[in-house]
Order: sequence, then structure tokens, then C-alpha cells
Amino acid sequence: MGEMSFVCRFREGSAGERDLLGGKGANLCEMTRLGLPVPPGFIITSAACREYWQQGEPPGLWEEVKALVHELEQATGRKFGDPEAPLLLSVRSGAKFSMPGMMDTILNLGLNSDTTQGLARRTEERFALDCRRRFIQLFARVVLKVPAQPFEDVLSRMRQRARVETDAELGPRDLRQVVQQFEAIVGEYSPEPFPSDPWRQLRLAIEAVFKSWNNPRAIAYREHHKIPHDLCTAVTVQAMVFGNMGWDSGSGVLFTRDPATGERVLYGEYLPNAQGEDVVSGERTPKSIVEMDQDFPEISRQLAGVAQRLEQHYRDVQDIEFTIEQRRLYVLQTRTAKRTALAAVRTAVEMVDEGLIHRKEALLRVPAGELAQLLLPHLNDAAKLRAVREGRLLARGLNASPGAATGKAVFDTAAAVAMASKGEPVVLVRPETSADDIQGIVWAVGVLTARGGVTSHAAVVTRGLGKPAIVGCAALHFNHDSHQISVDGHILREGDEISLDGFSGEVFMGRIETIVPDISSETHLSRLLLWADGERRLGVRANADTPDDARHAEKFGGEGIGLCRTEHMFFAPERLPFIRRVLMNARIASELEQQVEDARRALENAGDGPARPGLEERLAVARHKLDESREWHSYRHALDRLQQYQRSDFEEILQVMQGRPVVIRLLDAPLHEFLPSYESLLKEVTLLEAQNAHSPELAEKKRLLKAARSLREQNPMLGHRGCRVGLTYPEVYDMQVRAIAEAGCQLRQRSIDARPEVMIPLVADVSELKALKPRLQGIVEEVKRQTGQNIEVHFGTMIELPRAALAAGELAPEVAFFSFGSNDLTQMTFGFSRDDAEEKFLGFYLQHGLLPANPFKTLDEKGVGRLVRMAVEEGRQANRDLEIGLCGEHGGDPASIVFCHRAGLDYVSCSPSYIPIARLAAAQAALGESVRDV
Amino acid sequence: MGEMSFVCRFREGSAGERDLLGGKGANLCEMTRLGLPVPPGFIITSAACREYWQQGEPPGLWEEVKALVHELEQATGRKFGDPEAPLLLSVRSGAKFSMPGMMDTILNLGLNSDTTQGLARRTEERFALDCRRRFIQLFARVVLKVPAQPFEDVLSRMRQRARVETDAELGPRDLRQVVQQFEAIVGEYSPEPFPSDPWRQLRLAIEAVFKSWNNPRAIAYREHHKIPHDLCTAVTVQAMVFGNMGWDSGSGVLFTRDPATGERVLYGEYLPNAQGEDVVSGERTPKSIVEMDQDFPEISRQLAGVAQRLEQHYRDVQDIEFTIEQRRLYVLQTRTAKRTALAAVRTAVEMVDEGLIHRKEALLRVPAGELAQLLLPHLNDAAKLRAVREGRLLARGLNASPGAATGKAVFDTAAAVAMASKGEPVVLVRPETSADDIQGIVWAVGVLTARGGVTSHAAVVTRGLGKPAIVGCAALHFNHDSHQISVDGHILREGDEISLDGFSGEVFMGRIETIVPDISSETHLSRLLLWADGERRLGVRANADTPDDARHAEKFGGEGIGLCRTEHMFFAPERLPFIRRVLMNARIASELEQQVEDARRALENAGDGPARPGLEERLAVARHKLDESREWHSYRHALDRLQQYQRSDFEEILQVMQGRPVVIRLLDAPLHEFLPSYESLLKEVTLLEAQNAHSPELAEKKRLLKAARSLREQNPMLGHRGCRVGLTYPEVYDMQVRAIAEAGCQLRQRSIDARPEVMIPLVADVSELKALKPRLQGIVEEVKRQTGQNIEVHFGTMIELPRAALAAGELAPEVAFFSFGSNDLTQMTFGFSRDDAEEKFLGFYLQHGLLPANPFKTLDEKGVGRLVRMAVEEGRQANRDLEIGLCGEHGGDPASIVFCHRAGLDYVSCSPSYIPIARLAAAQAALGESVRDV
Repeated sequence: MGEMSFVCRFREGSAGERDLLGGKGANLCEMTRLGLPVPPGFIITSAACREYWQQGEPPGLWEEVKALVHELEQATGRKFGDPEAPLLLSVRSGAKFSMPGMMDTILNLGLNSDTTQGLARRTEERFALDCRRRFIQLFARVVLKVPAQPFEDVLSRMRQRARVETDAELGPRDLRQVVQQFEAIVGEYSPEPFPSDPWRQLRLAIEAVFKSWNNPRAIAYREHHKIPHDLCTAVTVQAMVFGNMGWDSGSGVLFTRDPATGERVLYGEYLPNAQGEDVVSGERTPKSIVEMDQDFPEISRQLAGVAQRLEQHYRDVQDIEFTIEQRRLYVLQTRTAKRTALAAVRTAVEMVDEGLIHRKEALLRVPAGELAQLLLPHLNDAAKLRAVREGRLLARGLNASPGAATGKAVFDTAAAVAMASKGEPVVLVRPETSADDIQGIVWAVGVLTARGGVTSHAAVVTRGLGKPAIVGCAALHFNHDSHQISVDGHILREGDEISLDGFSGEVFMGRIETIVPDISSETHLSRLLLWADGERRLGVRANADTPDDARHAEKFGGEGIGLCRTEHMFFAPERLPFIRRVLMNARIASELEQQVEDARRALENAGDGPARPGLEERLAVARHKLDESREWHSYRHALDRLQQYQRSDFEEILQVMQGRPVVIRLLDAPLHEFLPSYESLLKEVTLLEAQNAHSPELAEKKRLLKAARSLREQNPMLGHRGCRVGLTYPEVYDMQVRAIAEAGCQLRQRSIDARPEVMIPLVADVSELKALKPRLQGIVEEVKRQTGQNIEVHFGTMIELPRAALAAGELAPEVAFFSFGSNDLTQMTFGFSRDDAEEKFLGFYLQHGLLPANPFKTLDEKGVGRLVRMAVEEGRQANRDLEIGLCGEHGGDPASIVFCHRAGLDYVSCSPSYIPIARLAAAQAALGESVRDV
Repeated sequence: MGEMSFVCRFREGSAGERDLLGGKGANLCEMTRLGLPVPPGFIITSAACREYWQQGEPPGLWEEVKALVHELEQATGRKFGDPEAPLLLSVRSGAKFSMPGMMDTILNLGLNSDTTQGLARRTEERFALDCRRRFIQLFARVVLKVPAQPFEDVLSRMRQRARVETDAELGPRDLRQVVQQFEAIVGEYSPEPFPSDPWRQLRLAIEAVFKSWNNPRAIAYREHHKIPHDLCTAVTVQAMVFGNMGWDSGSGVLFTRDPATGERVLYGEYLPNAQGEDVVSGERTPKSIVEMDQDFPEISRQLAGVAQRLEQHYRDVQDIEFTIEQRRLYVLQTRTAKRTALAAVRTAVEMVDEGLIHRKEALLRVPAGELAQLLLPHLNDAAKLRAVREGRLLARGLNASPGAATGKAVFDTAAAVAMASKGEPVVLVRPETSADDIQGIVWAVGVLTARGGVTSHAAVVTRGLGKPAIVGCAALHFNHDSHQISVDGHILREGDEISLDGFSGEVFMGRIETIVPDISSETHLSRLLLWADGERRLGVRANADTPDDARHAEKFGGEGIGLCRTEHMFFAPERLPFIRRVLMNARIASELEQQVEDARRALENAGDGPARPGLEERLAVARHKLDESREWHSYRHALDRLQQYQRSDFEEILQVMQGRPVVIRLLDAPLHEFLPSYESLLKEVTLLEAQNAHSPELAEKKRLLKAARSLREQNPMLGHRGCRVGLTYPEVYDMQVRAIAEAGCQLRQRSIDARPEVMIPLVADVSELKALKPRLQGIVEEVKRQTGQNIEVHFGTMIELPRAALAAGELAPEVAFFSFGSNDLTQMTFGFSRDDAEEKFLGFYLQHGLLPANPFKTLDEKGVGRLVRMAVEEGRQANRDLEIGLCGEHGGDPASIVFCHRAGLDYVSCSPSYIPIARLAAAQAALGESVRDV
């Protein structure tokens, strides 16, 4: 490329110069240098375009272009504008980053009536006229801004008259008329006449491509994809080759491997007697590349060679455009092929086997986030297609949580629990969800809502549980009285079967088979993940609340359970009454117990002092009051029952995970979640009272309403939950820890290596740990004495409040581990309520680029991440043996996993289905790459 | 004091040895050294007591005590246990920190039947018997653990029989019987006989004092006051002198200045023929110290000398105990006098005038927090007393916000607004308050609730507004249907007048005059505060929302307004409909405006490009849609009206504060606060619907319900407010900034130096500032152009989210000032909802010492304070000129003010009434002292 020049011949550039030459141009240069059959051409650089936008056409540019066109004339033996042997050109846009369809391109440039006749003479009339009408159509639209429709109308009328299906079948007479009519259209619509001088055509075409850089849709596209506006486009000028030069010609697209499956076969399609645009237009159905073996056996072999050459050269799957002109092959473009996650995995693994790339490269070739497609249940493709054909596609919403589910539609939590507890899979369908629907979500196999965005309550909770959710499905109209939902004329009744595709956001009527992937067998993915395990430093655990979750986690390679949420265990219909009894009596019962405890301690402290008799009496009185209390007995009985349930829950999970740590978080949910919604109770009580009903039902509802009112909080997220409950109602945590210790000892007795760890949530200050831990440890010791078993139970704390992160140095000596609850930490650090933020303002923030990413999806490094780093550093300083993990939703997000790796965490914990993603992302982090999901 | 000895003679110790000698003992030593008439004695040190608790009575202690008692015998010329001239002793407890009434003391020790007879012979029989019965009574209770009641019963019967009013009037015959009966009681109740050997009496008494260090009430007291348990008590053994040795004897208490007013007069009382305990027992009414001039002129003069000597020596007001034994004066104790805030101020200032102390010392002598008593409106004392006598004291609650108020009781916000807007002062009385009551609170002069603690919503909001609040007043029973409240049989109706004493928590029926203090005149306080101003580095501004507030702030010395909350301005009944119309139409109107704005900007960017015509059309369409929208017109009209109101609000405030900065915070409240409560609407609509009413009322309620539902949030504190509203509904902030700029320019036109500053609340990321500030600055520039006035308007941001503190380095270059919103910062850092926390768990935390102080009252240095320090450091580093203040509730808390000083803030901002507190606390901080409020 000449100094200070704005142009570059194909043989002068290379693949590395995408900035200046655009992606397409750079690869054309590279292929030219490789000696592949590329039609000759040159590139006007993006610097010229930039200059154009700043000061108009760069001085001297046009002279250079003319000189290079003359070079093309020499190379091709044709002459630009010469009726005898006319050289035709393509003028294409092409920027550093692909902006498909956003900018303009002109083909077959150089034709006027003279050169068309000349071309007809040299080739065939039909071909020449076909090129002419293509050129007029494109040039008129792009340069002269003539609307497209009149041209389409002409072609359509002509096909009708000629009784043919496609433009390719139109004969020379037809096309002659088409060209005439096209010229008339231009005359009518264009303010200036169609230039007949090929040089003027070229100059206008180049300027049009320059201008197309700043057309509104290109600007919008760049804004959306954060592509700088001053990159500008290069312009490729190339000698035309013609796939439409008869039935021994054609155009096609070739992938060096199957982009859907990754199988190592040539994959693609071609169309005889067609230019490239025809292949993708859909007017004619292209043939499979396999058929080329028969139609063009020689070309087919040659093409296979080109494909292999390019794949070897670029060391990656290529997407190649080619044209056959009278049985001669030309390559017009190559680029790295887009592929499915399945293909990405298979390709990466097989290229390692083939010795083409290294294992580390293979690990970096697969965007970790895309693995979700392979890991979650999905609808059987064929069955889904059938459903679409049968008109069973009901609606589309936002794909808020991936996966697939099929089950009976239920419209509230009560119905969900009733039906699901009979073993019937149910899909919860709600106008929107709130904390009151949690039980329903826990019991459902999937969730569908009419309102809300992808960080709405329904979405977050369902994602946390690894189930599919479709939200914001506006077509759903709820008719509360008749218990029906109308959807565009269809009626959905409670109990009707529906299926959700959480990947696409599609909702189907009826049952569709779901397929649960299995990665435990010897697959490409499992091999890739084993390589990942060899590279990563970060451990990967699962968030798992049930034995099923635990088994799922184990199959996917979870190295333990990083978060077992005990609150979900209370939602079973046979358990709910007990937790409600606990909550309704907790305050009074805890006070009574506290009085006994205070008296006991005072007596202990008094020793044999003179105050002893008084204190003994105080203790006796306190014990008597407790023993007389109906509330206390109800409370204690309910706690006992819950303890039995919890013990067996824990036993099963610990057994599945034997030999691996299971971090059990003590109750953390806001308490009102266990009661019916305050609002619905308020409405019901108001109605019953208006009817003057003095039924037992009213009394019961009023009792519940009272309890719900007493548990209500202005801001439950900042409320009475976590260790605050553990301190004010100590019996609840005591019960849980006893259940954990008993489960552990039980297994120990059966020589099973149970490793329960107790995690205390929502700690803000070390005093909370100092008050809770000795008490809870005492219970573990007591159980060990009672059972005669010796197990070790570590205690740890969640770091989910900024205060905890700031006090990490004080907390660390008290515990064996930290686990960052990054969801809550994000809520508190930003002051964003996850339940409301997206709909109210976060959606707006993301749309307007006020935040680079949703902080509930990708961890905010600047703020939340800074707290994490501080806590890691100061925690480790205070306790060298401290183990540190993260168990928020971020644990399954590749970018956040990279952060965790860099921040020096020991592990991340995520939904079982996301474990492979985390394993891969952790390896990529270790490989020092910051591979971000798009 | 001998080496390795556990005892110390009075002449050997000094005031500095409180650790070892106890406060009382150390001062006895000091007075002995000063040559004052102190009866001889010695001290058994606290080290002996500690030894006693660790290993029993220290070896050799008893021998030392005996030797020292012999020294006392020599000094007094009497002999311990000698019937001829018996020496009697007092054995008193006394620790480093005063623990009044918690430990034991024994007087008149050494009496048995022999020594009593001897004493009777030397003095008078009545006196000797009086001493004996006192000794038996005290020794039996303290050492032998005999209950107190039987002794009291004997005395009571005896007074009845003798027909006298007081024990002092009982004759020798009566007393002889009393002693006999006392001995009988001991025989009956005590497991061991009463020791007649004085030496055994002494040894048991000393041990009893040692033991009393660990009696349950002493332990509880130390726990509550955080006094270490291993300090232990000293024991003072002193020769008795007798105020009960006839009518030429007596006992009394003397303050060197009036502890209530601070006036420099001797103040105190005495009782002839009495021991010290009689003065305080209340059985006989003591005489004023002034009367001593007549009764004991010589002693009176002598006492005045002692008082002056001690005050000069200790350089502070003294509280002195004395005894007159047969016209001889003895001083038994001196200590620094407790005093009222009023007295503390006057004393400090006058002692400076007298040259006794330095100004800096004076500043440190007044606990800043106690000034509140002098600064807030209070009920007229006499009128209050009258009300009590008339039986108008209705109930008592928690004194949640100090001050006083009198007005008509109203039971909901609607009534509050209706009555208050007619100029009638109202007191809002509610079962509890929530965010829905804010309008009512804003309109009321005081708030009274039946439930909730001192950090409840009502308390916090009312305190923020500087009005009195009494909460948790459990005696109030609401009868919703009849609109009455019953209080212990009384009925309170809406419209009845009541008065609140926010200092004491007392509620009165009827009107009681309130007195508004004035510190602007030349008072002691104003002089002290001027000295404070000379010492402090920290500026003091006011949180003021109205012109009245601003005037109040000015009078109290506010150097500007640090927080002017615009949301309260919208609650006036004539304004509320407009803000509601804004909220109900904001979403749709903002979207329409956004579309116009987007189109406008795209057109601007397009320049003369080819896209221009398309974009022009887009803009025209957007403008048309906006112009056709009824919602938009309603929205715009309402905004215009609000702007007019705001402009005049700001004008008045800026005028009051001319020459000083006025920081105006743009709208920050959660939006639902401007609508009626969602719950009450839900209830009303449910009822109206149940009645099948299709009234216009129902339609209107349903419309409001819909709006309330759309503004509802799970966690409003973490919700759609502050700059999030400013970004999503830009017209609201635009309107406010325009009003501010117009107000400023208007004043400027009248040559008034207006200094408005705009504060953007709830910023989490610099992108929010970058999006908002240029837009708002543009409006200021526009107004300046339009008015031709040139004012400077600084923009700043609140730091109230952890994210903002963590990103301070990025925020600082964008703004002129930071202001810490420490209330919200505390909420987010701890994850505590201020509205709910106290009742649910924070009360428990404080009770159980899990937190050293309520973090909403005193800034949490470890967590919140760390964020503050980080933000100050990094903010200043990024912007040298950054001005930094704090405007949360902590701005009026002395301990938090000390923190702000140390963290390097420029100013604090607090309620106008708290400005003097802040001025003083800031001076104390500068003086390098950490004076904490108790």
C-alpha cells in the first residue's frame, strides 16, 4: 500500500489490517496472497471514508481509483466502459466489524446500453440483460434513492405474463421489456437522469457507500452494538464474476464444517445460474452443496481443497462465498463461521484431536454462556415444529429463564401446591409474581407471567431454581372471575396443559416432549469440561435445595453444594401449617424461653452467693409460665415436626454429596413469605365482613390477617430475616442446626462421609456471629455427645451486606468460610430492589447505556466488586485458612466468574445446570482471557 | 500508702487515685490533705476487694485494719468497743465510677449493749439508743440478710403509739423498746446471732461491702453502664461523727452553685438532729441552707469557706455532704455536681468570667447533646403542673422526638390536611404511621402513636422535621368506627385539643402554653456558642424546607442550608392534585417527550446528510403524537403549576438566607407517598364493588388504585426515586431546576445575593450524573439567557448509597460538592429498614448489646464511617475543591459530629433546633476531645 495513499491492491493487504481494509477486504487480500482464485480488485480504505466525512472526497483519490481500475482492465483483459469487452465491477462496503445489511453495495457496475449490447455479444443476450436490470435496480435504489417497490412490481407482472415462477426463467424478450420499464421508473422517480458513463457510475457508487456509513439504521446499529462512529467503512472495488452466466455457472455459500452440529463435513448450498444475492433471497430454493458432486464434480473437488486450505490457514471453521463462472471457481469472501453452541464444542474438541489447535485454544473457542443451550431441558425440536404447524403456538414473551417445561396451567399458588403435591407437573401462570407466589414457584416446573421483565421477581426466583420462565407475555388477559385466561381469542383454563420454551420465550398449548440433556457420558462436552477442570483454579459448586438438585449437581460435576437454601423446604403443603404455627407464636414463645434462659444464666453467675435463693425462685417462676403457655407448646410441637422433616432432607442431600462439602444456609427468607398474601387476606376479610358473615372462616382469615400484618414490613429486603430471626427467635436456628447435626451423625453411624457446613446469613456485625455461633456450636456438640458420633461441622457467614464486607477483617477469625451473597450485596450496594428495579428504571438504564450490564446478571466490578476484593483481602489477612466462595446468581455468569477468579475466590456456586458453564468460564479465566458473553 | 499494702490512710491518698481508692475515698484523702475538717479514717483498696473475689480475704489485711483502727482510736481519743468512750465507725463502699445505691454501707458500727450504755453516759441516752437502732437495722439487713419490713413496722407502730410524726421525736423509752424489738426480729430471721463483738462486726461489715460488688443489681447496673466487672470497690472506714447528737447537731448537702439554674449561690438543705440518711429519706422536710445563717451562723460562714475552697480547688461546681456534731463542722464527701443543661451553660460561662477556667474548658464542660433541652419549644412548666393537678395528664409514651406541641387531635392524614390548611394547629394521632402518613406528619405540629419505637417511621420523619413525637403510647385504643380513641376510660375525639411533651413523653388533654426559646439575645448560651464558633473548623448548616425553617436556622446560627427537601413542598392540599396528575401521566408523557427528543437529536446528528428528510418526518410525527395526547397536556399543565409554586418557595428561602448557600435537593421521595394509601384504596374499592355500586366515586377510586398499584414497590427504599425519577421522568427535575434558576435570577434582579445549589439524590454511578447534569445546567443557562441575570448554580450529589461512596473518585470531578445522606447510607450498609428495624429486631439488638448504639442516631464508624472516610479521601483526591457535608439525622448527634470533624468534612447540616448542639459539638471535636453523650 502506497504511502499517504487511500487505496490498497488485494495483493498488498493482509488479514491483520481489518481497521483500514474492513473485515471483508482484509480477507480478500489474505486469500489473494494465498493464491486462491479471487477476482482482482482493490480497496478504498476506511481512512478515505473518514476523510470524506470530515472534508469531502480526499484530493487525488479519484485519480488513484482510475489508475487501479486500469490495472484491473489489464488483469482481466477487459475494459471499463468498452462495448467490445466491458469490465464490470462490484463496489462493496465493509467495516472492521460486521454490520450485516446496514450499509450499501452495488454490483454489475459499468453497464449502459452500449456495454450491455457488447456483453450480450460476447456472452448471451439473456445474461447481459439480466445483469443490466440488476444493476439499474440496485443503483437506482442506492444512489438515486428511487423506491424499491415499482421495480418489484414490474418483475412480478412480467413473471405473471410469462407464466414462470422465477426471474431466472424470464427470457431475453421479457428482460428487454423489464429494462425498458426500469429506465422509465428511474425517469419518473429520480431527480437526475441515470448516468450512462461507467466512470460517473463508479464515482457516485463509491460516494454512496461512504454515505451509507451514516445512514440512520447504521447509526442506530452502531449505537446498539457500541461500535465507534469514527471507524468508517472501507470500499472494495472488484472485477465482477458472473454466477448468472448460464447453467454452467452459479453462486453458493460453503461452511467448512456443519455450523449446526459441528460435524466435519462440507456444508452449504448453491444455486446454478444465479448471482450471490439470489442464494439468500429465498426466491429459488438452493441446492445442497452435496449435489455439486454431480453437477460440477471438478469444481466440487476444487472447492473442498479451498475449504481445507482456508480452515488450515485460519485454524477455524470458515464461512465461504463463491461463484462459478462458466465452470471456473472464484472465491469472493471468507470469514470465521458463526455456529451453535453444540457445533462450537464439537469443533473445538475435534480440532484438538486433529492437531489443528491446542486444548487451551479449544477452551477459549467456546463462549461459556452459550453452553446453557446444551445443558438445560429443551423441547423436542420435531415435536415443537409439529405444534407450530398445528397452530398450537399460543404466544411469545421474554425468555427470562432458559429451559423447557410442560405441565398443567395453574393460576395461583394454592392450585399449584394442590396439584403439584399430587405429583402432577404444573406451570404457574400469573399476571405478575410477587414474594407471595414463592411457594407456587417452588412447586411449579415453569413460570409464565403477563407482566414484568427479565429481572422481575418471577424471573429471578425461577432462574435461581433453574426452571424456565417466560415473563412479560402481554397477550395473556386474565379474567379473574371465570378463572380463565384469554390469549388472542384462545381460552386457557386452569388444568389445561401448556409447554414453555424458555430459550425462545414461546408458549405452546398442549404437551410437548422435553429432553433432558445428559453430559455424564463420553461426549465432546464432557471431554472439553475435563480439559477445563485441568486448567481452572476456581472450584465449582452447586446451589441445590433438594436431593434431586444434588444428584443433578453431581452429574454435572459439582464439587459440593455451595448453597442449600433451607427456606424452600418449608413450602410443602404438609409442612406449611407447622412453619405458620412457629411464626404466629414465635414472639411470645421466644420471650418466655428468653426469660428462662436469663434466669438460668443469672443463677449460674451467682455461684453460691447470697442471691442464689432469689434467683432460684425467679427461674422456677419463668419455667412455670412457659409450661402454662398454650402458645409455647404449639410452637415447640411445630418446631419438633419441622426438625424431623429437616433432618431427613439433610440426610438425603448429605448422602448424595458424600465426601463433598454441603453448605447449608440457615433460614433467610422474609417471614411473611410463609403466610398467604396480606393483600388477598385483606380483600377477603373486607368482603366477608361486608357480608356480615361471622363464620369460622372469617375468624381464621382474621387470625391469619393479624399474623400477616404483624410480619409486614415496609422494606422486607431490609427487614427481619436471616440471622436477625436467628437472634430474636433463637429456637428456629437451634432446630435447624440440631437437624443438621443429627443428620450428619446418623450418616456417620452408617460410615458415610457427611460434610455439612452451617452458613449464617445476613450478618452485619461480628457481634451477631459472636452471639450465634457458640450457641449453635453447643447444639452440635450436644448432638455429638448424645449420638456418640464425631463429625466436624464448620461454621461460616454470608457476606451479603456492605457492612459485612467492610467488617470482613473482624468476621473472618470467627468463621471457617465466607460466601458472597452477591444478589443481596448488589441490591444493598446500589440501593436497587431486584423485585422492582427492572420494570421501574433498570430497564431504562440498560437501554440508555447508563449501566454497562445488568448488575444482577453480571457482577458490578467497580462497586460490588470493590467490596468483594476488600473483603477477600482483609478476610484472608485475618484468617489464613478462610475459604471464600460466591453463591449469588453471578456464580453462573461467565464474566462474573472471571472476576471471581481474579479476586482470588476459592469457588463459585451456581444452579446445577450452570455448573458446566462455570467450569468452562473458570478455565477461561485461568487462561488469562476475559471472554465476555455477548 | 505502704508497699504491698491493701490499705491507705486518708492523709496518704489523693484525688488522682480513684482506681484504687474509689471516687469517694480519693476525695476524702484530697480533702484531708487540704486541711478540711474530715473525720479521720482509712481506705481498704479496690485491689483488696479484687483479691477477695479471687482468693478470699487477703492475708494480713485484717491485721492492717486493726492497726489502723488503733490509729483512729489515738486520733479521736476514743476506743473501739470501749464502753467508756466508744469509737464508732462507718464502713462505706465506693468504686471508681459512682454506682448510687447499688452497693452497701454500714454506719454506727461498734455498738453493742455495753458501748451503747457507755455512749449514753457520755452523751444522751436518746442519742445512743437512736444510733443503736440505726446500726441494728442496717447491719441486720446488709450482713445478716434480714428483711427490712419488720423493722419498719416496729418504728411505724411505735410512732403511732407515741403519737409523733417522725422517728426523731421518739423518746428514750420508745427507743429502748424499739431496740428490744429489733433484737427480737434479728433473733427470729437471722440464722446467726447478732455479733456483739465490735471487731467481729467490723470484719463482717467489710466482707459484706466486698460481697456487695457482685450483688445482682450491681452486676446489672455495671452491664448497663458498661463498667468493667473487675474494677471492684474500695471500702472506706471512718470515725463516725453524729448529726443526730441533739438539736445543736445536723446533717446536710450543699452545692457550690444552684444545680438547676447555675446561679452562683450556695444551694442545698440540711436537717438538725439527723444523720445524713435522714436528709434524703424524705421523712422529715429539710431546711434550706439559707436558714443556716440563723440556726448556725458560725458554721454557715465556715461552710461557705469550705465550699469556695473546694470549688477553687476542683475548679468545678461541687456537691458536698457535711455533718454538724455539736456545733462542729465535718465534711464527709465532695464530688462534681450533676447539673441541668441550663446550669451547665451558665456555670461554664461564669467560671470563665471569674477567671476560674479557660474558654476551652468551658466548652468541654457542657455535654452538647443536652442542649436540646434549651433549644426546643417546651411546655410552660407552671401550666404543665396545673394540668397534672387538674387530672389532664392523659397518658405516657416513648419520647421519640423532643419538643412540645399543642393543637387539635386528628386521626388521619385527610383530616390533618383539611384542618391544618385552615391554619389550625393539629396533632396527628395514629395507631402507627407508615409512609402513607407523611403528608399528615408534614402538616401536623406533633405526632402521637400507639405503637412503634423511637426509630419507627413516625419518629424518624417527625424528628427530621424538628417536631415532637410520642410513640408506643400503648394506652391509646382506637375505635375506628366511631372515630374515637379511648384512653384509660377517657374518650378523645377528633378535634379535641391535646398537648405533647416530647421531652418526657407525656400527653395532656387540653391546650398548654408552649414556650419557644430565643438564643439570639445576649445570653450565656449565645456567648458560649460564639466561643465555640471560634474553636470549630466544621461548618454548621440547617436542614430547612420552608422559609420559617430558614428563619429559625438563621436565628440559631446556621451558616446556610445544607438540605432543603423539595418533596415536602408538594403536600399542600392545593398542590397535591397537581403532583398526582404529574405522577399518573408521567410514564406516557415522558415517553412521548423522549420520542420527540430522540428524533430531534437524530436530526441534529444527521447534519445535511441524505437521511435528513426521513428524520424530519419522524420528528414531525413525534411532535404530532405528543400534541394530540390528553395525558401530556394534563402533565405539562400540572408541571407548570408546580413550577410556579416551587419558584416562590425557593425565592423566599433564598431571600432569608441571602449571602449563604442553600442546597436544594431535587425530588427524592418514593412516588407512592403522594397518593392515598394503596391498602385503604384496595379496601374501599373492594367494599364499593361488593355493593355493586357503579358510582363515579368508584371510578375515581379505581383510577387512583390503578395509579397506586403502578407505583407500588416491594421495597420502596430501594426503589424508583431520586435521580432515577429524574432520569426516567426528566420533566420533573427540569421543572424543579427551572424554578430554582428563576428564583435565583429574580432575586439577583433585586440585587439580592442568592446562592442556590442543586443536589442530585440517590446517585449510584457517575453515568447518572453525566446524563443529568448537562441537561440541568442547560436549563440554568437558558434561564440566565432569558432573564439576562448572571448567577452561579453549583451542582452536587448526595452520597447515600454504598455504590456512590465506592465510586466517589469518579463522581467528584463531575460536581462541586458531596453531601452524605447518612440515613440512607446507614440503611443500605446495614441492610436495615429504618421504618421497621427497631420494632422487629433493632430494639432487641440494642437491649442485648449487639450494637453499641443505634446506628440511625449515632453514625456507625466501622462500617458507614469507613465508607464516608473512603469517599472523602478519594473524592478530594479527584477534586481538590470539592466541598463535603453531611445532612442525615447524624448531623445533630454530638458523637457523629466528632466523627465528621475527624473525617475531614467541611460541614454538617441538621434540624434548625440542633444547630447550637452542632456548633458546640464541632468545637469540642476541634478541641480534640471525644465528648460522648450518655
